[in-house]
Amino acid sequence: MKINGKDVRALWFSNGTLKIIDQTKLPKRFKVYECKKYRAVARAIRGMVVRGGPAIGAAAAYGMAMGAERPKRTSSALRNTRPTARDLFYAVSYMEEAIEEGKNPVEAADRYVEALIDRCKRIGVNGLEVLGPHSKIMTHCNAGSLATVDYGTALSPIRLAHSKGLEPFVWVSETRPRLQGMLTAWELGQEGISHQIIVDGASGDLMRRGEVDLVLVGADRITSGGDVVNKVGTYEKAVLAHENGVPFYVAAPKSTFDPETERGDDVPIEERDEKEVLFVGKRRVAPKGSRARNPCFDVTPARYVSGVITEDGITQ
Amino acid sequence: MKINGKDVRALWFSNGTLKIIDQTKLPKRFKVYECKKYRAVARAIRGMVVRGGPAIGAAAAYGMAMGAERPKRTSSALRNTRPTARDLFYAVSYMEEAIEEGKNPVEAADRYVEALIDRCKRIGVNGLEVLGPHSKIMTHCNAGSLATVDYGTALSPIRLAHSKGLEPFVWVSETRPRLQGMLTAWELGQEGISHQIIVDGASGDLMRRGEVDLVLVGADRITSGGDVVNKVGTYEKAVLAHENGVPFYVAAPKSTFDPETERGDDVPIEERDEKEVLFVGKRRVAPKGSRARNPCFDVTPARYVSGVITEDGITQ
Repeated sequence: MKINGKDVRALWFSNGTLKIIDQTKLPKRFKVYECKKYRAVARAIRGMVVRGGPAIGAAAAYGMAMGAERPKRTSSALRNTRPTARDLFYAVSYMEEAIEEGKNPVEAADRYVEALIDRCKRIGVNGLEVLGPHSKIMTHCNAGSLATVDYGTALSPIRLAHSKGLEPFVWVSETRPRLQGMLTAWELGQEGISHQIIVDGASGDLMRRGEVDLVLVGADRITSGGDVVNKVGTYEKAVLAHENGVPFYVAAPKSTFDPETERGDDVPIEERDEKEVLFVGKRRVAPKGSRARNPCFDVTPARYVSGVITEDGITQ
Repeated sequence: MKINGKDVRALWFSNGTLKIIDQTKLPKRFKVYECKKYRAVARAIRGMVVRGGPAIGAAAAYGMAMGAERPKRTSSALRNTRPTARDLFYAVSYMEEAIEEGKNPVEAADRYVEALIDRCKRIGVNGLEVLGPHSKIMTHCNAGSLATVDYGTALSPIRLAHSKGLEPFVWVSETRPRLQGMLTAWELGQEGISHQIIVDGASGDLMRRGEVDLVLVGADRITSGGDVVNKVGTYEKAVLAHENGVPFYVAAPKSTFDPETERGDDVPIEERDEKEVLFVGKRRVAPKGSRARNPCFDVTPARYVSGVITEDGITQ
């Protein structure tokens, strides 16, 4: 992705240190978070310094490399950071195998990440099929370079369409409680891609009014039955798209697919601290005494999904 | 409504001054905003010191009384504050007629407000029919006493159910961008009614998981064709309720009905300043250069509405 005109990735490894663009500081400040030990990587994942399934997987791959001398301890610490995203478990298993086979751990992690970036690039090429000139695309959360190291999943075809002069326009839903939509807006703004931010509750009426050509989101896990687990609010967009005849596409690399779980309702859904809802930044917005529920993801049953754009093509 | 155990209304008139609980300061601070002239009332409506269709109507009634010596100028100023809520126009017309008939303006406004409060009380009685013991009700925005002077529309049956020991539970969606859900949580908390706050995007999956027995919201305008114009995000809840077999009820006094407009899409929808989306409080959360769309209301077509609870019963 371009940041101030320069090509940058969401994370990179150099001199034994994993460097991650700190997503908790964006879009206000561009800050690089440094992890010198696997424990710091686990903390970065848990604290959402790095977020987005594929990027979490990439960070975990380097975390495994950094704690390769005791792989069981390291993998257990990394697996316990966040329960929902499939890529995390995929990457840790990949690295366990590589370490067991005696491969160089850092080189194995490098290969994992290069393959991921290549997958995202191919998602862009494959996803171009569903975009026309001047497509009005609605997305949710951040499924961009920050969430995937580079290119993005949902944002990859949009970037490619932009570079080909197709002039895509993106509706960015802000995605409470953590406002990851602002990260999407930041990525789009950096590359001059036309977009507008909306509150999550405005998505449906824009579809009803015919202002959305398609919905395009990422995924944290896709089950063998085709259910999509993604950021809370995704299910709402899928139902509203279905009701309004708007195609609903999901973009994800194969590492997001979970062949062992059939139903979305069998995926563990992370519930995060209620403070994310009760506070905005450091300011409490809820009345004293009121409590909140804060499920981080939701389940979109397969029947609402028009297709899944992967590195191999569009499924369904 | 009870505030710190005392009976209080959202606004009241005394000694020539309209006093309004300042909704822009709640739930953090309880402050009373004083209007000594009709122009101050117009400012209070425009600035959302008072919000919620019926409460706006009540404020406008007193505004008319305060500017009764020049009714045309006053009604024009008040009508130009906000375009969507029907009660505003209803109240101004009511007062124009009363002034033309030579009635005492303040007494006419008092009668208007007492009749409104009585209507809301009857909405509570009529709405009790759709609530059972331990009903899990989802609401949106604030359709409580603050929005209606007293009792509320959607909250009126919930208050009554609570006072009868039916132990209702309320899912409060926060309602970005202005977070009026926090006003609802504040009202519920003051009366000890069980509730939890959620982000708007979490509403749908809670319905899908069977955690919602019914949706109950207020309205800013109901057209002759039965379309409901209400806070942005309402349409999404209606579609999601429909998809999940959850009844979707609207509670509103007859002053919210617009007999002259058939379709919701013919109602002017207020677009507010994009800063409400780009900022939370005084903090800009959006990246520099990004813009936002901020439609304040949306349209729920009649086919999604299970019934409208009015002072006269449940229609449809």
